[in-house]
Amino acid sequence: MLAADVEAVLEANQAFYDAFEARDIDAMSELWEHSDRVICTHPGWSPLRGWGAIAGSWFGLFGNTEHLQFIVTNARAEIDRDIAWVVCDENILGGASSGTVAALNLFSRRPGGRWFMIGHHGSPIVG
Amino acid sequence: MLAADVEAVLEANQAFYDAFEARDIDAMSELWEHSDRVICTHPGWSPLRGWGAIAGSWFGLFGNTEHLQFIVTNARAEIDRDIAWVVCDENILGGASSGTVAALNLFSRRPGGRWFMIGHHGSPIVG
Repeated sequence: MLAADVEAVLEANQAFYDAFEARDIDAMSELWEHSDRVICTHPGWSPLRGWGAIAGSWFGLFGNTEHLQFIVTNARAEIDRDIAWVVCDENILGGASSGTVAALNLFSRRPGGRWFMIGHHGSPIVG
Repeated sequence: MLAADVEAVLEANQAFYDAFEARDIDAMSELWEHSDRVICTHPGWSPLRGWGAIAGSWFGLFGNTEHLQFIVTNARAEIDRDIAWVVCDENILGGASSGTVAALNLFSRRPGGRWFMIGHHGSPIVG
């Protein structure tokens, strides 16, 4: 793996948390692939499949949750051709939602070189 | 995606649950890629990275947990060249562990055509 590729994937991963923290639906929409193959499992949720369902979940979350701050630690990217996966810890500060969530994020690289999110799975770390 | 490829990925996914249900450490070892890039997040756990840590977790789980039965539903596979991801529901029957877990499983295809597991992330579905 080229260091520059790893850096680009980790930047795409951070952009996801920046959009989440800013509750910026446009930025969130811009960084996801808009397709039927994308998947998203929020902590405690059933899996969502396809951009329509996932977009709806962000609208709901951004409208209903308190302000959350994300401090991402232990992020590590792996790349296999044009698919990448990142495992990281989301250290969340924000009232009742405070805690640490383990995340697995998937990305796909388009011909132009930009990485788009195609999967997110988060689960609270207990204890 | 070729239907035969999707079928092969779903078979690899089912083999994982068969090994889990049988608490068969040899079968589990045989279906995972033995590398540093593999990742595994059991429900409520911090992410494990690399085959050594993941193998250790299976030894522990198979030795310490009650017998679990897995009924896998809603499994859907997506393939991008030689990487595949499956989202499914694990309907678990087994005393205190009974419940439904959302899973995201990753697979890598070797030149010979066989799919090896490179990632697993499970989280309980609440409510």
